[in-house]
Amino acid sequence: MRFDPASLEFDAQGLIPAIAQDAENGQVLMLAWMNAESVARTLEEGRVVYWSRSRAAFWRKGDTSGHVQELVEMRLDCDRDCLLLLVRQTGAACHTGRRSCFFTAVREGEEQEIAAPL
Amino acid sequence: MRFDPASLEFDAQGLIPAIAQDAENGQVLMLAWMNAESVARTLEEGRVVYWSRSRAAFWRKGDTSGHVQELVEMRLDCDRDCLLLLVRQTGAACHTGRRSCFFTAVREGEEQEIAAPL
Repeated sequence: MRFDPASLEFDAQGLIPAIAQDAENGQVLMLAWMNAESVARTLEEGRVVYWSRSRAAFWRKGDTSGHVQELVEMRLDCDRDCLLLLVRQTGAACHTGRRSCFFTAVREGEEQEIAAPL
Repeated sequence: MRFDPASLEFDAQGLIPAIAQDAENGQVLMLAWMNAESVARTLEEGRVVYWSRSRAAFWRKGDTSGHVQELVEMRLDCDRDCLLLLVRQTGAACHTGRRSCFFTAVREGEEQEIAAPL
């Protein structure tokens, strides 16, 4: 079946969450949001284009930071309301300079930083 | 620092997205939602408790299906608005009987099923 971005289930703001995962080692890098057009552009360009909710603008990952996400494969879930993006990540996915945004773990009730900036 | 679920950034519905990842092989299994109390209960019980948006009720994963998610570690992202749950998954995470909900890939513009029910 031909994939149509409009067939996804978007929320009331027209957005769908997208998880970026390192295609090489499986590390979950970040979660951000897409609208139908950013899904289409990501597939066309082979580079991940999110929708920035804070800036209300397309966010072509890496355009300012150089930390490009090259799309290896897009997957959708059973409810068509979440995307999984397998990516080749250049440098840090996180704006703090860390490879992954998920660098804080909860261990025995305490927050613990488990990764340093690259 | 002591972790307080109330310190997370919840959306207008009081929810935060939670990604479940297989702690053993890194497979992304599903994304679902939590409120502050389900975050607290998950940490207390060591078993993942989501908030079902469709049923508007707590959803202790596996209670009816047997497909329990045992929490190995909870992580939060840099913006404190997304959780990553490393889990030990019994059986299928997906209600279709597949290990992961992300069993549909977009390849050359076509939807392709890449995993069968267990």
